[in-house]
Amino acid sequence: MDERVSDVRGMARRARQAQRRLELATAGERNGALEAIARTLEEKAAEIVAANREDLAAAEAAGLPGPMIARLRLDEAKLAGVIRGVRAVAALPDPLAAEPEAWVRPNGLRIERVRVPLGVIGIIYESRPGVTVDAAVLCLKAGNAVLLKGGKEAARSNAALGAAMAAGLRQAGLPEELVQVLPSAREAAVELMNARGLVDVLIPRGGAGLIRATVEQSRVPVIETGTGVCHVYVHEAADLAMAREIVLNAKCSNPAVCNAAETLLVDRAIAARFLADAGPALLAAGVRLRACPEALAYLRGAAAMVEPATEEDWAAEYLDLTLAVKVVGGLEEALAHIARYGTQHSEAIVTADGAAAERFLRAVNAAAVYHNASTRFTDGGEFGFGAEIGISTQKLHARGPMGLAELTTYKYVLRGNGQVR
Amino acid sequence: MDERVSDVRGMARRARQAQRRLELATAGERNGALEAIARTLEEKAAEIVAANREDLAAAEAAGLPGPMIARLRLDEAKLAGVIRGVRAVAALPDPLAAEPEAWVRPNGLRIERVRVPLGVIGIIYESRPGVTVDAAVLCLKAGNAVLLKGGKEAARSNAALGAAMAAGLRQAGLPEELVQVLPSAREAAVELMNARGLVDVLIPRGGAGLIRATVEQSRVPVIETGTGVCHVYVHEAADLAMAREIVLNAKCSNPAVCNAAETLLVDRAIAARFLADAGPALLAAGVRLRACPEALAYLRGAAAMVEPATEEDWAAEYLDLTLAVKVVGGLEEALAHIARYGTQHSEAIVTADGAAAERFLRAVNAAAVYHNASTRFTDGGEFGFGAEIGISTQKLHARGPMGLAELTTYKYVLRGNGQVR
Repeated sequence: MDERVSDVRGMARRARQAQRRLELATAGERNGALEAIARTLEEKAAEIVAANREDLAAAEAAGLPGPMIARLRLDEAKLAGVIRGVRAVAALPDPLAAEPEAWVRPNGLRIERVRVPLGVIGIIYESRPGVTVDAAVLCLKAGNAVLLKGGKEAARSNAALGAAMAAGLRQAGLPEELVQVLPSAREAAVELMNARGLVDVLIPRGGAGLIRATVEQSRVPVIETGTGVCHVYVHEAADLAMAREIVLNAKCSNPAVCNAAETLLVDRAIAARFLADAGPALLAAGVRLRACPEALAYLRGAAAMVEPATEEDWAAEYLDLTLAVKVVGGLEEALAHIARYGTQHSEAIVTADGAAAERFLRAVNAAAVYHNASTRFTDGGEFGFGAEIGISTQKLHARGPMGLAELTTYKYVLRGNGQVR
Repeated sequence: MDERVSDVRGMARRARQAQRRLELATAGERNGALEAIARTLEEKAAEIVAANREDLAAAEAAGLPGPMIARLRLDEAKLAGVIRGVRAVAALPDPLAAEPEAWVRPNGLRIERVRVPLGVIGIIYESRPGVTVDAAVLCLKAGNAVLLKGGKEAARSNAALGAAMAAGLRQAGLPEELVQVLPSAREAAVELMNARGLVDVLIPRGGAGLIRATVEQSRVPVIETGTGVCHVYVHEAADLAMAREIVLNAKCSNPAVCNAAETLLVDRAIAARFLADAGPALLAAGVRLRACPEALAYLRGAAAMVEPATEEDWAAEYLDLTLAVKVVGGLEEALAHIARYGTQHSEAIVTADGAAAERFLRAVNAAAVYHNASTRFTDGGEFGFGAEIGISTQKLHARGPMGLAELTTYKYVLRGNGQVR
């Protein structure tokens, strides 16, 4: 595997060329390519897992932390899951098949708005080799070429996965340049960010630092994904038992993901009662609490588990079993707190008061706003999209879970008989 | 008028605050604000025109070129047209009123996808004071706050227009910070481009240099607009009389705009015949031709009007009565030329061969692709959108003419009864 920074611009040009071929392919051909990729991944499973073992050995030798090694691992069972995912994407409806909107102008010009692929998509991510395949097949299904820039810890795994996918594309009679694994060196990401005109969109997937660096440096349009400082707001009219279950779920069911709750807001009127119930339940689930002075008075627990919150806590995306807790004077104070510290990802109110709920749903500016449900549902599968490439937290193009439709754009097709203006 | 670079970030924060108020306004309130702005523009017409005269005098003293002075001029008649435009936007359908898509998940969670404003929009433009009002009212109609950074030549005009619009907003009971005219100094544009998180999207409107600088430097998401190296391709099976009229219209009806044709591609099989007819017609219309060697052989005219093309001509956006002319070997060569030199704006084929037309319409990657019509129809009004904020030449979010719908985004509203995951 060549770890020199090679010719990313050249790779992008070849991706463009290959994508022009894919643009003319039928849905059957695209799905056939996905099936061929599933097969070649199966055929080369031993090589892929062996390459991953080398990555794992190097990561262990370098003393990488346990959670990072867990993300890097791609054993037979995980690879089989990845391959099932490829076939699941092949089985999804064709995002390019939608009937175009069409209208005829008074001058007789017929205008159609037709779905087309985005073109060449760059994905910048960290060291989860499963992403290499997931992202590639979603892009292909929607008619796009993809340039994959993964983390250096997964370089051998990604090269093996890329070789298997290239073999699948060749078997399907499509250009292997549709899926290209870039060198894992940092410079390749910089070249990708500078490839305006050659790459149509960049999607960073990973931690906050990676995403911030990409959105700040890229000259290629970026879809920002995944930073989630999500709140659960327990309104004074909440069903407190329901609120407790929602908070526990939003924090504990998978704290490492972006739709997990990071801050609990509680109305003053019910704070003592609610925290007397929910506090012990959270602590029993292993959650560390960072509480405002007022909430602190209602929470009992070991000093290591219940600590005073600082200003930083309100903006923190912990991604672990830590929860900030703040007592608020009512709906408007909760809305102001969320407007200030939220990341426009997922925000929930728990209340039996319909008017308060509607005010919250209307006023909160976020990709997903919830009434009486856990923030954990902001996910392509949970929305019924079948698969997702990420959760957009920006407002342009796509917001929230991005499925196949969000990997397409449109163009206008105009048919006339000599119209001039 | 204060020409210091003031606190653009503070202005953006106040815009955000004001937009949260507008987000809760009804369509009636938003249209009422537009009507109030139309009235205050009428009431302050004399002051606005006087301010514009000062700008014009300064521009003339500075020796600005005639076309720039023409764009800068805002006399009573042009202002009346701008005000009619405000009322026309008020009369358009509400872009936020569309019935949301809604579905219910197996767990009972009801998901709605609702239209919402983009939020705070920054417009960076040159010295056409009409844009100040056009852009502001389109943004307001769609529920957005707007920060307007115009050219310094129009600073007095823009300040007067901004004051009139602020008065209209106050009369309508809405915060005047919804429409803010920024200082015209270059530094204000730089601050705007750095205001990520405070400004949701930047839309540059103007020449290629302005747009390039914005897309390259901005950390705020940008919608690239308006660079148009548009082609008319005359296929061997074209109705040559129709082709001549389309080429003449695409080049001559308004050469200064982005949807005008810049290059004519002609199939070798009909080049001699077509250019013998279209060449003199173009020259008679005052068009200067830059021709490839083969086309040159078919064109007769004064040396100043017919010149050999250089490599630069194929990429040139002339925006005047100049047209590059190239003979090609057929459809595939035309497609390759357009893929290489086009700017993904508007591309036309003239042919009576349906299969060739369909191949062109499918293969060309551009916002608008035409069969047997002039490229000049890529325009919000001509598409039936009523008004436009620009023509997007990128693929994210919006492509082609951007009407009111393109100034909105969506959010997901989820209603449950205690769902957890």
